Amino acid sequence: MMKMFLSKLMPVDDAQKIINTYLKTTGVEEVPLEEAYQRIIAQDVVSTLNSPPFDRSAMDGYAIQAEDSFGHSETNPFQLKVVDQIGAGQKSNLKLTSGEAIKIATGAPIPAGANAVVMEEYTHEKGDIIDVETSLTPGENVSPAGEDFDEGDLVLNKGKLLGPAELAIIASAGFDRTLVFKKPRIAILITGSELVMPKNVLKGAEVVNSNHFTIKSMVESCLAVPEMFHSIDDADLVEELFKKLLTEYDALITTGGTAISKGDVVVDVAQKLVGDVPIHGVSLRPGKPFGFAQVYDKPVFMLSGFPVAAMVQFDVFTRESLLKIQGLNRKPLIVHKKASRKIPSTLGRTDYIRARIEGDMVRPLKIKGSGIIRSMVESDSYIIIPENLEGIVAGAECEVLPYHSLKA
Amino acid sequence: MMKMFLSKLMPVDDAQKIINTYLKTTGVEEVPLEEAYQRIIAQDVVSTLNSPPFDRSAMDGYAIQAEDSFGHSETNPFQLKVVDQIGAGQKSNLKLTSGEAIKIATGAPIPAGANAVVMEEYTHEKGDIIDVETSLTPGENVSPAGEDFDEGDLVLNKGKLLGPAELAIIASAGFDRTLVFKKPRIAILITGSELVMPKNVLKGAEVVNSNHFTIKSMVESCLAVPEMFHSIDDADLVEELFKKLLTEYDALITTGGTAISKGDVVVDVAQKLVGDVPIHGVSLRPGKPFGFAQVYDKPVFMLSGFPVAAMVQFDVFTRESLLKIQGLNRKPLIVHKKASRKIPSTLGRTDYIRARIEGDMVRPLKIKGSGIIRSMVESDSYIIIPENLEGIVAGAECEVLPYHSLKA
Repeated sequence: MMKMFLSKLMPVDDAQKIINTYLKTTGVEEVPLEEAYQRIIAQDVVSTLNSPPFDRSAMDGYAIQAEDSFGHSETNPFQLKVVDQIGAGQKSNLKLTSGEAIKIATGAPIPAGANAVVMEEYTHEKGDIIDVETSLTPGENVSPAGEDFDEGDLVLNKGKLLGPAELAIIASAGFDRTLVFKKPRIAILITGSELVMPKNVLKGAEVVNSNHFTIKSMVESCLAVPEMFHSIDDADLVEELFKKLLTEYDALITTGGTAISKGDVVVDVAQKLVGDVPIHGVSLRPGKPFGFAQVYDKPVFMLSGFPVAAMVQFDVFTRESLLKIQGLNRKPLIVHKKASRKIPSTLGRTDYIRARIEGDMVRPLKIKGSGIIRSMVESDSYIIIPENLEGIVAGAECEVLPYHSLKA
Repeated sequence: MMKMFLSKLMPVDDAQKIINTYLKTTGVEEVPLEEAYQRIIAQDVVSTLNSPPFDRSAMDGYAIQAEDSFGHSETNPFQLKVVDQIGAGQKSNLKLTSGEAIKIATGAPIPAGANAVVMEEYTHEKGDIIDVETSLTPGENVSPAGEDFDEGDLVLNKGKLLGPAELAIIASAGFDRTLVFKKPRIAILITGSELVMPKNVLKGAEVVNSNHFTIKSMVESCLAVPEMFHSIDDADLVEELFKKLLTEYDALITTGGTAISKGDVVVDVAQKLVGDVPIHGVSLRPGKPFGFAQVYDKPVFMLSGFPVAAMVQFDVFTRESLLKIQGLNRKPLIVHKKASRKIPSTLGRTDYIRARIEGDMVRPLKIKGSGIIRSMVESDSYIIIPENLEGIVAGAECEVLPYHSLKA
């Protein structure tokens, strides 16, 4: 009887592929660049400007004709006449000729006739005459117009997460607004008659609802907007909430009621509403009782009630999905570390082992229960043991997923 | 003359140490746990509860006396009488005796007299009698009270960044509020007469103010609260703003006006106000013209006007400082990769090379200007060449700092 049951568990990769077939990107909206940090861009950006917009000085110094300096040095200086000065934000109307210099600030436009900038450190000023103690090549200390990019250049592709550099390039391309994917609104339904909000004294069979805090913050870490709902383990109530939430939100995440062995509240409701629950039970440890269905055209991620199992399921199945529906396809950074000890696993099962990175090594924590929250706090990464391995021997390289690299 | 000038540049490590001596943590405030995600905790957490709060079932099944099952198996089942059932959030008032079973939900309290839970999959139900097809050891499928932690245990230390797992443990310890460090309010003063907000057509010597967007979002990525100010290159105006902003904010970040060669607006103002600018000019590429001072008891980070130099200076000197004043001491994750080609550097100078990670290799981008924003967009990491190296040979392992690991 157990064997039949185990053989029904779906490999993690297959489950991820099935979920992907149900994901659709959210709509787009235009936002001020001022508010676009950590949004995902929904357009390509073609520059309307050259950057820099003109040949400009890379140094504070004097714009000159490089040819005037040829052959000169500290021991063989030469003199130029200072005929103008250009501060930041200014332009000179003069055309510089041989024997002349124009004082220039970093970033200011190179005046007509000049082709190099001598750094202030290599000069001595006496009235309107400077001694120059070096020789320059044409173009030295000049940032040419369009050095970074030209008008008409594609400077950014759709689907990028907007960080500081991306905002800078959009601004420099001439835009103060941009098109981004809408932030998905995610309903989170925590089920469990025993669950109460945190308090110092628990009565009877009460248990603190820690999933409320973990799942909410994990959704926030995916740049989505969570809204929290709770229900006791009652099929009718859960069904009502499914109907209401799946009309109003872009996706639903539930915790609890996903036991595989028998009918369980949440999965049964999904089954009743759509007749098809494509994923129920995955070959993952911890996190076996995971379910996924599409209800009213919206994805429903059914996570376990056990806190650690729910967190692992979220990281394995939900996290990248929430990013994908905002247009972001990415791979979290996997690092390779040597296992500090043997880690047993089972062929056909994917293990996510809570671990700590210690230099070139990774140390799996010694814990078993899927409810052990402290193990999540004390670990900083998962060791991933893929289904085609029976385990890892001590000292062998293994795949490590730092928690930090999960956050978008 | 140049030699004297170069010898004044301060090594990066020394500058970081000096800055550290000026940093003080912000005050603390109590917030609802609901709002504590991505805050830094300012207290130790000692649990007021056991977690789990009682011996509970790890499975859906039947609570029994393990001794009743000894010697039994699929081919040699035995029978028990079902005398009660316990759903989630419920307790049984019965004391179970030999020959009896109580149906129990995952997470429910183990009834008195029972010491194991047989999974539903190993049983057949006929009315109030079950056939049990396995044998259990005492404690099997029972999560004992306090398995995770006990009342009185220290479960979390001051100074941790609160992520999903940390919120869960605070909740499970019985708290719905917690003490966190206040978010520092950071004034950002962008200087530069040439700077304008993004638009499609630039006039004269205008340049788009991209630093506005980069520095603001970088401060946000440090969990601090930025407020933006702009000034033309005018010493009196900058001085007025220094006085005003350093009264009202926890720290000041400026861009522009930090040239080392000569008096430059921003550094001169700091010098005038406090008479001592402990850092001006660092042995860093890009990012040499960096300044730091303490003015009116507040730290002032003076970054270059060039976008890329400013970003690197922020990452090297400002980022960890802003986290430290919120109580977070951390090290971003450095990974080791093989350089795809030779990277020259200079002894005594620290280089931050924009690069892309490609599997086990890292490829430095070919760029030189410190204003080249596109290089920041196309790179995903810095190769760090410390000051004691003259460069990296092709194929050698080098330190790589993924941009992603910079974000808090």
